[in-house]
Amino acid sequence: MTSPVLLMLTRPSKEADAHEPAGSPFTRVDPAHEQVRVMDLGVTRGDGIFESISVAQGRAQALEAHLARFAVSARILQLPAPDLDVWREAVLAAIALHDDFPEAYVKAVLTRGVEGDGRPTGWVYMEPSADFSAARAEGIRVVTLSRGYATTVARELPWLLQGAKTLSYALNRAAGREAASRGADDVVFVSTDGYLLEGPTSNVVLRVGDRLVTPPTDTGILAGTTQADLFAFAGGLGMDTAYELLTPGNLRTADAAWLVSSVRHAAPVREVDGEDLPMDRELTAAMNEYLLARRD
Amino acid sequence: MTSPVLLMLTRPSKEADAHEPAGSPFTRVDPAHEQVRVMDLGVTRGDGIFESISVAQGRAQALEAHLARFAVSARILQLPAPDLDVWREAVLAAIALHDDFPEAYVKAVLTRGVEGDGRPTGWVYMEPSADFSAARAEGIRVVTLSRGYATTVARELPWLLQGAKTLSYALNRAAGREAASRGADDVVFVSTDGYLLEGPTSNVVLRVGDRLVTPPTDTGILAGTTQADLFAFAGGLGMDTAYELLTPGNLRTADAAWLVSSVRHAAPVREVDGEDLPMDRELTAAMNEYLLARRD
Repeated sequence: MTSPVLLMLTRPSKEADAHEPAGSPFTRVDPAHEQVRVMDLGVTRGDGIFESISVAQGRAQALEAHLARFAVSARILQLPAPDLDVWREAVLAAIALHDDFPEAYVKAVLTRGVEGDGRPTGWVYMEPSADFSAARAEGIRVVTLSRGYATTVARELPWLLQGAKTLSYALNRAAGREAASRGADDVVFVSTDGYLLEGPTSNVVLRVGDRLVTPPTDTGILAGTTQADLFAFAGGLGMDTAYELLTPGNLRTADAAWLVSSVRHAAPVREVDGEDLPMDRELTAAMNEYLLARRD
Repeated sequence: MTSPVLLMLTRPSKEADAHEPAGSPFTRVDPAHEQVRVMDLGVTRGDGIFESISVAQGRAQALEAHLARFAVSARILQLPAPDLDVWREAVLAAIALHDDFPEAYVKAVLTRGVEGDGRPTGWVYMEPSADFSAARAEGIRVVTLSRGYATTVARELPWLLQGAKTLSYALNRAAGREAASRGADDVVFVSTDGYLLEGPTSNVVLRVGDRLVTPPTDTGILAGTTQADLFAFAGGLGMDTAYELLTPGNLRTADAAWLVSSVRHAAPVREVDGEDLPMDRELTAAMNEYLLARRD
């Protein structure tokens, strides 16, 4: 079985390349073996970035959007700029090497490297996705949790790194445990000034009448690659789409809502803080059919 | 040269021990080799905790206080409880194996392990400390930066993990870069409700007259092991010590101030946001002499 597949990048960034030998920009290694040093800042400080790219029927989805966001995250963290040509080649190589699965994903990771070394560490890792068919068909229960930040932090306090997809995700994991302890599956973060933000690993999208609405990215959330594609799809159906400040009240009274992300795709919300929310099963099925059919 | 020294723990937690073989609870490995898997949650999510313990003349300092805080961090992250007897033994073994240096440190790291595996990953790593003599003697320039959180988050929003020493430290590193871009050496975080919190890797201590004052730990900051020892020392000198809410104005008008941490010890603040602050050179020297002389 050729799964998982792991490629370590020898030249993750052009900036750090000068003393690198010529040759392949990545090396295939055994994913069952250890590949990261204990003093890598990706480990000791969560000082790095990542993207998770879904792969459907052997084709990467929204690859260019993921690569573009990877570069944005690197800029926010002041990491050496990733050489996107190399990363694209590595992602496609991993897919070519991997067994065929209906749904899989590639995780791309860039860290600041070992402290004092001055060279970033990078890899792409591919494995089959978990089975999300139940979440897509039957929906998920979410709780709203305060993120502790106002919507202004991304604009005013850039050192908080809101808007970058960093490896420092411990609190996203803790929010997931909090949700589980309340009998729920996932979280929608809310700002201290009272607005919906995002899920720990997803964007939130509401349907209000014939419109799809999601929070603006300048509130300190990640720009969603899947949400962007979903809006293009909805536009094609003749629906209006908009980026607007939304409240927990908007979520509770929406005609339908989803958490959307690259690997789980569109998970309809069936319960918010213990209260039922209507599910739009027909639109959900159409969304996921569209999302899974994307080819980059 | 026997430095650095790296020991991987085979039984970092009692909870996860059942299927472990008997034998030494840790294994010495080559620190120049890779020792962590790319799917370890310590890497992919910064999902783990750490302590940095200073070692002076071959003796660990405040070891029991560090171990106790390690256990608190594990509890906040709902990690398997570290077996503190094993961790203590590993720290002492690393010190015994390491070359003698006037100042060194041991970093203890516990991660949630590889996703789906259910077993935490743990190691202790020892190397010589950087030379902090200039910071201790000549002082440091700090800037105040908003942490984006109110002082109430630790009590009200535990999923934000304030008060735990986690591997998700990317924003602490970003704050350091922001300080450098403003011509400063370090940061004092300020809450959105206007109170001093802590440095990215230190506690802030003010001298006001004959009193030493530091913010209370229920504001969402780490309980400082070095700050606690410093207060014991100051008490022995007949000084009053107190935990009180402090403002940036208190810092600017203090008779002296320090950022205190386990490895750099007491670094006197000589400038706050570009304004000079008086340094108490005599007390600073006495503090660092005391801190370096500690034996656990």
